[in-house]
Amino acid sequence: MMNKSITTLPPGSTIGILGGGQLGRMLALAASRLGFNIHIFCPDANSPAFKVAAKSYSAEYDDEKALAEFARHTDVITYEFENVPADTAAFLSSRIPLYPNEQALSVAQDRLAERRFLAAASIPTAAYASIASIEDLQEAISKIGTPSVLKACRLGYDGKGQAVIKKPDDISGAWKKISGVPAILEAFIPFEREISVIIARSQTGDMVAYDPGENRHHNHILDETLVPADISADTQNKALEFARKIAESLEYVGILGVEMFVCNSSAHDPLYVNEIAPRVHNSGHWTQDACNTDQFEQHIRAICGWPLGDAARHSDAKMKNLIGEDFHQWPQYAARADCNLHLYGKLNVRPGRKMGHVNQIMPKKPDKTSRN
Amino acid sequence: MMNKSITTLPPGSTIGILGGGQLGRMLALAASRLGFNIHIFCPDANSPAFKVAAKSYSAEYDDEKALAEFARHTDVITYEFENVPADTAAFLSSRIPLYPNEQALSVAQDRLAERRFLAAASIPTAAYASIASIEDLQEAISKIGTPSVLKACRLGYDGKGQAVIKKPDDISGAWKKISGVPAILEAFIPFEREISVIIARSQTGDMVAYDPGENRHHNHILDETLVPADISADTQNKALEFARKIAESLEYVGILGVEMFVCNSSAHDPLYVNEIAPRVHNSGHWTQDACNTDQFEQHIRAICGWPLGDAARHSDAKMKNLIGEDFHQWPQYAARADCNLHLYGKLNVRPGRKMGHVNQIMPKKPDKTSRN
Repeated sequence: MMNKSITTLPPGSTIGILGGGQLGRMLALAASRLGFNIHIFCPDANSPAFKVAAKSYSAEYDDEKALAEFARHTDVITYEFENVPADTAAFLSSRIPLYPNEQALSVAQDRLAERRFLAAASIPTAAYASIASIEDLQEAISKIGTPSVLKACRLGYDGKGQAVIKKPDDISGAWKKISGVPAILEAFIPFEREISVIIARSQTGDMVAYDPGENRHHNHILDETLVPADISADTQNKALEFARKIAESLEYVGILGVEMFVCNSSAHDPLYVNEIAPRVHNSGHWTQDACNTDQFEQHIRAICGWPLGDAARHSDAKMKNLIGEDFHQWPQYAARADCNLHLYGKLNVRPGRKMGHVNQIMPKKPDKTSRN
Repeated sequence: MMNKSITTLPPGSTIGILGGGQLGRMLALAASRLGFNIHIFCPDANSPAFKVAAKSYSAEYDDEKALAEFARHTDVITYEFENVPADTAAFLSSRIPLYPNEQALSVAQDRLAERRFLAAASIPTAAYASIASIEDLQEAISKIGTPSVLKACRLGYDGKGQAVIKKPDDISGAWKKISGVPAILEAFIPFEREISVIIARSQTGDMVAYDPGENRHHNHILDETLVPADISADTQNKALEFARKIAESLEYVGILGVEMFVCNSSAHDPLYVNEIAPRVHNSGHWTQDACNTDQFEQHIRAICGWPLGDAARHSDAKMKNLIGEDFHQWPQYAARADCNLHLYGKLNVRPGRKMGHVNQIMPKKPDKTSRN
């Protein structure tokens, strides 16, 4: 695992990013601060990240001519979203280093592959079963019980591609909603809170993790992340250990987001991994204003073969997403001394669209994790 | 002064910047974070700021066709250097708001105009005289004495366009070095240290100032800025008062840098203004990592009619410029947890060229200004 070929890319090198949304844009801004050039590849001609990049490629992900051109002019390639097509990743990584690696992509793209990977790494998750037919689903419900959640294995996000099964009668409706694609049934975890760990792993295998954040959702979309999370020191240590184990097992390079469920204290095992994201993560945006080195710079450092930066947290933080019409609240946040605004330069406000976020920064309170 | 027409530019507006060096680049990065689009105008086709901008104009400052096009597609214009030609400023400001205003530019471009402006505002400076001939110089030396410094009124920076006169015999040599252009003779101030105040003034006349930094030069180029400066509370208060008075007198909008000389305690008046810069300033780079809102975001907020941000300093800081070959030290700074690297994406290392800077961030020590 150690001492594979490590290439340190000096400032002035060119970083290619697949995907031109807000994550690509914030990666580009962080990389520019370190003196790198940024090229963005994204099918959407209005990508927010295009406006802060040295060069933009507006082409489809299967356009091999454009991909070859993109690869020829960059020194390393990364991505802002986990659904990079496997063929695209293979095409690029045969030409130029691609981080995080293809294994991380394939595990994160397929919920069943992710569950199997986590099981192999002895990381607790909800009970699950692979579902290819309504018979599979009926059999799985008889074992796993209700409530449970039927999920498409691929391309689900923000609650899409999911059907909750509260009682056996819901089976046929859920199957209709999801049917036709490979699916997974998961036991519903009666969690008390969701946390996420943002961890960075370098090309030499060094790792630094940020303090876990506590996530609150609204309409299945992340609404707020609070740091520190209201969890015990034991839970925090276990969460960090899980994240480290996952990053190591994947021989991961870059920022990895790991979402976990913390159950109430009466549950047998209070911590389950829900999902991994092989990229900078919305629940890590608070690091921009509460840490010396934020998740975006860490990711750039890792993929460029630099040493990782300091992930220590100097403040408490509350990150709030500005979604859809929330955007119009920007003046109230701009006027607050305790808030830092981050807006994504998107042209149009649409319901559910992430338009920006606010990091509220507060003096660090005594560590809650000492409560145990 | 208050309530002149204030236009608040919403995120998504386009900011034009004259000049494409590192200051334009860092302004662009800060503005992008707030959701603005950036257009850069600079004659140099390799401008570092071009690589982080939505649109670039590589044209001369007297190219009215290019300037008109630039103005047509931007909502407000600012600049990263004080030597914007007066005709360029007039051409643009007749079409679109230009901040800081033309008065600030004209005062900062001409050392004699600057002295006269400061005198009118009752701000102490070194004794000075306008010099148009060697006879003027001889007469001025007889009044002001030696040591003194002969300076070209325009286009002097980093020690260029200056001649020190240590004794009357130096007069003819100094005159030859500078001659042919309007000049100014200034008494040499036996200063103990140089400080600078970075102050922001909004369109509504609100002002916030950062704590003064203490500047150390090497080969006439800024080498380091230390914050806090080792000055008394009285000196700090006076320095801030001078900066506020200058910003108000100019009806200034944006970030203003004010360099001052602090003399030893036996001097009659311990504080003199040396120079004003109507732009973000190298001695304010430490604010990027030691303050909630840095000088670049403050400047963008001010010119866009936003409220100013929080200028409070949460840490002590030492900013070190990476000049010329210093650039190659980047790996050592990248490896330090207490340092934040900022590199400018310049293609070639040249002696004296500012390639980047490092902000070393340290826990805030008890305030030195309380020593009195």
